[in-house]
Amino acid sequence: MGKQEANIYEIAREAGVSIATVSRVINHSNAVSEKSYRRVMDAVRKFNYVPNSTARSLSTSTSTSIGVVIPDINNPFFSLLLEGITRVADERGYHVLLFNTAENTDREHQVLQTMREHRLRGIIITPVSEQDPDTMKRLHNFETLGIPVVLLDREVDSQFFDRVVTDDERGVHAAVSELIRVGHRRIAIITGPEASRPGRERLRGYYRALREHGLPVTPAYIRKGDFMVDCAYEQTLALCAMQEPPTAVFSSNNMTTYGCLKAFNELGLRVGADIALVGFDDIDALCWLDYNISVVSRDVPEMGKQAMRLLLQRFESERGERAGARECLPTELLLRGSELLPESGRAH
Amino acid sequence: MGKQEANIYEIAREAGVSIATVSRVINHSNAVSEKSYRRVMDAVRKFNYVPNSTARSLSTSTSTSIGVVIPDINNPFFSLLLEGITRVADERGYHVLLFNTAENTDREHQVLQTMREHRLRGIIITPVSEQDPDTMKRLHNFETLGIPVVLLDREVDSQFFDRVVTDDERGVHAAVSELIRVGHRRIAIITGPEASRPGRERLRGYYRALREHGLPVTPAYIRKGDFMVDCAYEQTLALCAMQEPPTAVFSSNNMTTYGCLKAFNELGLRVGADIALVGFDDIDALCWLDYNISVVSRDVPEMGKQAMRLLLQRFESERGERAGARECLPTELLLRGSELLPESGRAH
Repeated sequence: MGKQEANIYEIAREAGVSIATVSRVINHSNAVSEKSYRRVMDAVRKFNYVPNSTARSLSTSTSTSIGVVIPDINNPFFSLLLEGITRVADERGYHVLLFNTAENTDREHQVLQTMREHRLRGIIITPVSEQDPDTMKRLHNFETLGIPVVLLDREVDSQFFDRVVTDDERGVHAAVSELIRVGHRRIAIITGPEASRPGRERLRGYYRALREHGLPVTPAYIRKGDFMVDCAYEQTLALCAMQEPPTAVFSSNNMTTYGCLKAFNELGLRVGADIALVGFDDIDALCWLDYNISVVSRDVPEMGKQAMRLLLQRFESERGERAGARECLPTELLLRGSELLPESGRAH
Repeated sequence: MGKQEANIYEIAREAGVSIATVSRVINHSNAVSEKSYRRVMDAVRKFNYVPNSTARSLSTSTSTSIGVVIPDINNPFFSLLLEGITRVADERGYHVLLFNTAENTDREHQVLQTMREHRLRGIIITPVSEQDPDTMKRLHNFETLGIPVVLLDREVDSQFFDRVVTDDERGVHAAVSELIRVGHRRIAIITGPEASRPGRERLRGYYRALREHGLPVTPAYIRKGDFMVDCAYEQTLALCAMQEPPTAVFSSNNMTTYGCLKAFNELGLRVGADIALVGFDDIDALCWLDYNISVVSRDVPEMGKQAMRLLLQRFESERGERAGARECLPTELLLRGSELLPESGRAH
């Protein structure tokens, strides 16, 4: 399997659809039923079908440009990913074409459309949403054109692609378990977006820690965030205004941690003395400023390097080899004191 | 002048050099004397000469890719510039191809070499050094090929290019004058690199403020920095260890401010109480953390937007119109209390 050359007629026959339907899938028109789409993509995978002429010229195995699509250019997490990607890319003579979607799916679709006009050798993307069918189709389509795609940190709901993630669930489980171990019982979380793997996995780690330690889930302690400062700030103010406020807050990413700290500072609450805080992802600036925030840490530049290495493997691999590799990097719990049970908590 | 079409023979005749020399200049070989180089470039400018065939295919007026070359992907200042550039680029259907030189001139030369292989419509660059002749030749060469170049924040020693800068000298002059006005007499500065316009201009503002207020220059208070955290941290420790330490420090960029704060925290010095600090460029994170650091501020995304707008003007302009526009944006002094004379300073 996988080595034979197929044409559009064979794909249509295999999928049991018309040639027009195959064409619509390949040009990611939306006028295709989910069922037909699946059947065509299955056939494309089975035959490793690559549409020729225009398609091949888009693919261009001689290109040295890698399209990198990130959702927030102002988040240092993505700067660190980029640093890792560009380091490996540079070593191997590849260059990064950067696209910013600003956490907006419409913009992501535009970006993916215009990327078709570039001679890209491969794509690394942190998609805005996991559940967006249009983005998923467009990414499938790049693969069909012979342009490999690697998902980074976030995923889409498909086993089709290579991906690099971290073990977020386990990391948050360890952090919240530690909060419980030192005596916290009222532990809040400011979540990430539900539609993103990291947001969901981190919340899952929180639930598992509570469950394993026999603590009840208090819905009012679970606050929806969006990985941005402003929302986290508002949610932290709301938590602190509760009749029975939490003694500890888990913040689901670096920007959320900043939002929590902004609220705590405004309320005059000292972290590790009046309230506990543990965050996901380390923040260099907080270390320089001697904020000893405990965090679930991970090697972010290494994630970027791994993503680029997966792409390089795809460039070098036989046409017949398929994507679907999943690199899962570990996290590490760094305890610095901000997790300790505050005085007020002990009094209760 | 400017509208006639010239060929390589006419350029050679005008410059009084051989055709081989013109070719060497255009392909930026280093085997050309400075004098010949100048004469060829003068002739190129006079005739608005654009080498054809290969050269024109490199230029490609249909490309929608903008090459952006920045020196430090982890500095939020450059993320904000990028945000501004990409915003205007997106609106107009252009896309950003990002290159990171990591403050390394060798790497900058490599980057500029590989950029020739891409179909770029224009280039925005913050060069590593102002005085690097190789970079300057390569940038001239892009202009010769019909690919306009805009310098952003930093410059090179040539009037040839469009550029977007800020009035750094005036900004620092205002900040240091304010330090003097509230009573400081022992004012240190941690500088940026001498080979960069911002580094030099900011030091110039410091000198002018001291001079205008009749204060002597104390060489030991002028500490060489490199716009990075570690060096600023070391220099701040050295300043604080002096027999007669400064009562105020001016830090020449955002990373330098972090380095100063790291040292102050380590020494247990409170900003605005034990020692004064004013920095260049505002830092969002410090505002979230309620660090009330006074800064010389500027509209960084607007700088990026302006650079992209200058490129767009060049795309739309007649072949005959030349570069050399210089947009200088203002700075603003934001006073938040960190500039005040510390107790210990008042005691002396």
